[in-house]
Amino acid sequence: MAIEKLKIGIVGGTGYTGVELLRLLAIHPNADIVAVTSRGEAGMPVGEMFPSLRGYVDIVFSDPAKVDLSLCDVVFFATPHGVAMNQAQGLLSAGVRIIDLAADFRLQDTGVFEKWYKMPHSCPDILRDAVYGIPELYRNEIKSAKVIGNPGCYPTTVLLGLAPLLEKGLIDFSVPIIADSKSGVSGAGRKAEIGFLYAEASDNMKAYGVSGHRHHPEIHAQLTQIAGDKLDFIFVPHLIPMIRGMLSTIYVKLSGKAKNVDLQALYEVRYKNEQFVDVLPTGTLPETRSVRGSNQLRIALHKQAGTDYLTVLVVQDNLVKGAAGQAVQNMNIMFGFNENSGLEVMPLLP
Amino acid sequence: MAIEKLKIGIVGGTGYTGVELLRLLAIHPNADIVAVTSRGEAGMPVGEMFPSLRGYVDIVFSDPAKVDLSLCDVVFFATPHGVAMNQAQGLLSAGVRIIDLAADFRLQDTGVFEKWYKMPHSCPDILRDAVYGIPELYRNEIKSAKVIGNPGCYPTTVLLGLAPLLEKGLIDFSVPIIADSKSGVSGAGRKAEIGFLYAEASDNMKAYGVSGHRHHPEIHAQLTQIAGDKLDFIFVPHLIPMIRGMLSTIYVKLSGKAKNVDLQALYEVRYKNEQFVDVLPTGTLPETRSVRGSNQLRIALHKQAGTDYLTVLVVQDNLVKGAAGQAVQNMNIMFGFNENSGLEVMPLLP
Amino acid sequence: MAIEKLKIGIVGGTGYTGVELLRLLAIHPNADIVAVTSRGEAGMPVGEMFPSLRGYVDIVFSDPAKVDLSLCDVVFFATPHGVAMNQAQGLLSAGVRIIDLAADFRLQDTGVFEKWYKMPHSCPDILRDAVYGIPELYRNEIKSAKVIGNPGCYPTTVLLGLAPLLEKGLIDFSVPIIADSKSGVSGAGRKAEIGFLYAEASDNMKAYGVSGHRHHPEIHAQLTQIAGDKLDFIFVPHLIPMIRGMLSTIYVKLSGKAKNVDLQALYEVRYKNEQFVDVLPTGTLPETRSVRGSNQLRIALHKQAGTDYLTVLVVQDNLVKGAAGQAVQNMNIMFGFNENSGLEVMPLLP
Amino acid sequence: MAIEKLKIGIVGGTGYTGVELLRLLAIHPNADIVAVTSRGEAGMPVGEMFPSLRGYVDIVFSDPAKVDLSLCDVVFFATPHGVAMNQAQGLLSAGVRIIDLAADFRLQDTGVFEKWYKMPHSCPDILRDAVYGIPELYRNEIKSAKVIGNPGCYPTTVLLGLAPLLEKGLIDFSVPIIADSKSGVSGAGRKAEIGFLYAEASDNMKAYGVSGHRHHPEIHAQLTQIAGDKLDFIFVPHLIPMIRGMLSTIYVKLSGKAKNVDLQALYEVRYKNEQFVDVLPTGTLPETRSVRGSNQLRIALHKQAGTDYLTVLVVQDNLVKGAAGQAVQNMNIMFGFNENSGLEVMPLLP
Repeated sequence: MAIEKLKIGIVGGTGYTGVELLRLLAIHPNADIVAVTSRGEAGMPVGEMFPSLRGYVDIVFSDPAKVDLSLCDVVFFATPHGVAMNQAQGLLSAGVRIIDLAADFRLQDTGVFEKWYKMPHSCPDILRDAVYGIPELYRNEIKSAKVIGNPGCYPTTVLLGLAPLLEKGLIDFSVPIIADSKSGVSGAGRKAEIGFLYAEASDNMKAYGVSGHRHHPEIHAQLTQIAGDKLDFIFVPHLIPMIRGMLSTIYVKLSGKAKNVDLQALYEVRYKNEQFVDVLPTGTLPETRSVRGSNQLRIALHKQAGTDYLTVLVVQDNLVKGAAGQAVQNMNIMFGFNENSGLEVMPLLP
Repeated sequence: MAIEKLKIGIVGGTGYTGVELLRLLAIHPNADIVAVTSRGEAGMPVGEMFPSLRGYVDIVFSDPAKVDLSLCDVVFFATPHGVAMNQAQGLLSAGVRIIDLAADFRLQDTGVFEKWYKMPHSCPDILRDAVYGIPELYRNEIKSAKVIGNPGCYPTTVLLGLAPLLEKGLIDFSVPIIADSKSGVSGAGRKAEIGFLYAEASDNMKAYGVSGHRHHPEIHAQLTQIAGDKLDFIFVPHLIPMIRGMLSTIYVKLSGKAKNVDLQALYEVRYKNEQFVDVLPTGTLPETRSVRGSNQLRIALHKQAGTDYLTVLVVQDNLVKGAAGQAVQNMNIMFGFNENSGLEVMPLLP
Repeated sequence: MAIEKLKIGIVGGTGYTGVELLRLLAIHPNADIVAVTSRGEAGMPVGEMFPSLRGYVDIVFSDPAKVDLSLCDVVFFATPHGVAMNQAQGLLSAGVRIIDLAADFRLQDTGVFEKWYKMPHSCPDILRDAVYGIPELYRNEIKSAKVIGNPGCYPTTVLLGLAPLLEKGLIDFSVPIIADSKSGVSGAGRKAEIGFLYAEASDNMKAYGVSGHRHHPEIHAQLTQIAGDKLDFIFVPHLIPMIRGMLSTIYVKLSGKAKNVDLQALYEVRYKNEQFVDVLPTGTLPETRSVRGSNQLRIALHKQAGTDYLTVLVVQDNLVKGAAGQAVQNMNIMFGFNENSGLEVMPLLP
Repeated sequence: MAIEKLKIGIVGGTGYTGVELLRLLAIHPNADIVAVTSRGEAGMPVGEMFPSLRGYVDIVFSDPAKVDLSLCDVVFFATPHGVAMNQAQGLLSAGVRIIDLAADFRLQDTGVFEKWYKMPHSCPDILRDAVYGIPELYRNEIKSAKVIGNPGCYPTTVLLGLAPLLEKGLIDFSVPIIADSKSGVSGAGRKAEIGFLYAEASDNMKAYGVSGHRHHPEIHAQLTQIAGDKLDFIFVPHLIPMIRGMLSTIYVKLSGKAKNVDLQALYEVRYKNEQFVDVLPTGTLPETRSVRGSNQLRIALHKQAGTDYLTVLVVQDNLVKGAAGQAVQNMNIMFGFNENSGLEVMPLLP
């Protein structure tokens, strides 16, 4: 029997999420990449820009103005914010499913979107039906979704790190949840900016976005949604001299109700059937390299002795579970493939 | 007039704090390094082990069993914990001052010392008179001290980052102070351990010591001392792929009293005369490289919008202000030199 | 039809070549890892030491003294030099094939072996029939080999980089061939040595083994063998602050005969059917990351204007094509699998 | 007696050689920085762009169109190629000395300059009197020079690495001199280019400029000048994931005359009085970190056993002895200061 092959389009193939999609889809048994667009590089063979793909991806970058994506089964947008929402209607009309790796379909509150992304939302109707693409939280909705808002990299760590507690009401919201997050430099994208040069970002680190980061409202909205309650949330991201990798160190005050709960067991049961979420044994200190290049996310719980506080440590590869891998996972669910199809990629250690 | 030259001994010169003392003292106008000991490397020229010192440090490592340190004016211990306390009495009797870069004289509570360092304290009497060596907090005591317990690297960031608030009672202790700290790998010392190999620690990060770190009781004791009050303290250190550099991201709930205080001004006034503490302008995001190789510590304040929380960001070079530089600063104070003597070392950027 | 599964043993599973074999074999369709030995870690789950393998490798490290490897189809030795040769006879008698990633079966001249590895060779008979495991040079011999001496990491780059020229007699041997090679730090193995600590090896580089390196005689012997002629060879390896990756910059004087040869075409034809050797277009500057984590080796040719010299640039991942990947490639050939079985691993870029 | 203070101007203060000049001159006892220009950042405090300089450099960037540099004693150009030559005549007329860290005054052959820098030379008369600024080769000429062409970073390593041999005629020019050089990423300057991003340049390396690099003609011209003879020269630079540091591995065939020469002694005598050139003991393997941040250059000699070839290893900090430090050394000589004034900066190790 012939294997089903999806016709796949990638809009914006020269950034890091774009090349990461190419890496994963190039050996995905059900994927046939029919078009990769780039305004700047149209006509260049993909393998010339990314020699790592030589022999696996043989097409050239297409001019987005000239390519007809309506023949695709699914189109991934690995573009700046604002691109997907302007092409969504046309593609949907042609029956094409959309997975947007930017922010256009992540925030249901268009006022919040406009505040943080400095542009009006051009298709609130489509947004309303879009699904926030974390499979471990919204798998059923993803199955039938036409449009996926693929989450930001930071949100995936915080939301999966706290979901079991939130779902059971085990956090005391009288104090804020604090997420002190750390990301490798690829999270900033493949943009020529001085601050991300090797000679600037190496052997160096800093906090950034302390007074406000776009992922704050995204995380806050989802935390609130899962909790079904109001809560305060403090978020401080940091830039770390790594290419890939993300660690969120999350501090929560446990509610009185949590006293008699075996939290380790709670997490293990919650994620028992999730292939990409790994609850580590008690006392483990997860390293980002344990997930390098793979779609795994690992969680460890640490109770702070003498306090009511729990520290949750979550690691993922920001470009895989934090972006392109999760997007492929969403695609697999939308089209009924095995959820791990194309994602059986081992972490690269060392 | 001849410049006064101190006769200086360094016990344990092959670790990172040892070689850092050598780097700073080699060009200190008042320093004459008369002995550097090493059990393992006795007889080897210092410049052979550390070619960076060729032409500046011409002595050979001495066998600690054979060298007479009683002729020194001051002896630095850049040794494992437990060495200094066993030699302290003899040196003091000979009129030698002691600056210990290990933990022997940091914790006044010997029970806490024994719990964390797994050894009894051998000279509680000397400990009682030892001074905790942060000049910006205890300058007067340092002036007349015979023995200095040079602080741990992490404590310096947290204590100087919070002192202005603690001294004025501006923190609400109903919730814990949280310090999420990040350190370069040199903080682990020059020890052959697999976890600190390049191929393990590069392009990788993790939290460690989450269930308990030796600097927790040290910081907790000093915070309590400065506040004059009980408080809870959560401390999570992280290992970052940098050689040097330390950033503490500190989260505190402000007390009601803080509402009407200009915190930026408070910090600027508090550290106005401190050459090595730099209060950055509002909104600054300090980078660790801004202090690389220098004795500077930089602080920035960030109020978390919509909450009563303040985030304090503090950077230093863990081997300089966090260790050897602060030790030299203490020496300068003890002997009446200019406090910045030998410490006019510019940060290396890039 | 059931897929054929080999029973595989790995002796020495805690080093970098060991964990790399595990990464590749864990998802190899024809591999069933039945034993991984470690003297030091017997009893520990493999996934506890290497969390990257959690969910993929479920066995525990075996005590080498207690495990019976004679039931395996093939045994990989990822051990220090000298281990494989002492177990070879027993395994061969039991019909087990051997792939040694150390040096025991690389050098046919036992005198040279003894000089460089400081031990007598314990089984010269077996050595005589062992095959040097570079498939692109010795594929036919590998097919029927019982014992493979898997090449050193450096030799693979130099030999594949020069084979087309050597085979056609296009190098002028009146001057030495010079290989200036650069390797990531993982090449030094997973050994606790101070020189390979992050704080020593990061932001730093050096040449080493300039007066003699074990790969010099190995490369020299193979160059001579392929050329069928005597030649001089200068080899200077360098340690580079990368986890993985190897680049050899090779300088050769072309013979008069080379004047009329299209060298680019020569290489392209020579490696046309080789899936893991990629001849890059003229003028390309290969980067080590273009092969990170994969079994690819890429070659580029640069004629030095105004001279008779050619510079050959060769990149590979030292742990994959330079070690474990090539070992799996050899296994595939020995057992008649597709040569790329289990090796369809995309390079990780960025 | 008052210390003489030079009035110093720096044109182009926002690049890496600019900030490095500021680092060194900020604590130079005879330096008074009166102007630092930047077209893009005029009006910004220097310490805001480079927080490492806070407290040491208190001026703001000046608009180059508005500042009068004719009041300076000396002006450093840390600008792109072509800037200094257009301002040289005016400054010289006002009696200002010029030290150009770009290429305008390095190549006496204006045809070669035009070929490699794609612009005509605007002041060949001034060029004719300009001195190539390697003090160890041209100290006497530097003393009275009005204009210094400060050398490129690579040339300093190759020229000082070979000068003793060239001066004595000990190299056999029947084969080319080969320099395989490696540089940290700061050598590319502080320019927003994708290829130098952290996520591109980290954990990665490559050769570049293989078919031609601007430093090739510069080195070739100087080698020829020192040798007083024609010679062939092959130069292959490599980009290494380090912030700073440069290593040149130089391969030369020794002439028959060299057989009876003690080369180690030759080098030691040649550089005996040179404070910034360190001839390492026989057999040493120099590391780039041994000079990090300092003006030292270190050389080691390795005879290749069984051949007539010598390998010369040379390390320096590309931004110090390779650029700004050498420029300050030149200034010290021009103005009669101690040659090490302001340059007693210890290497930063680790």
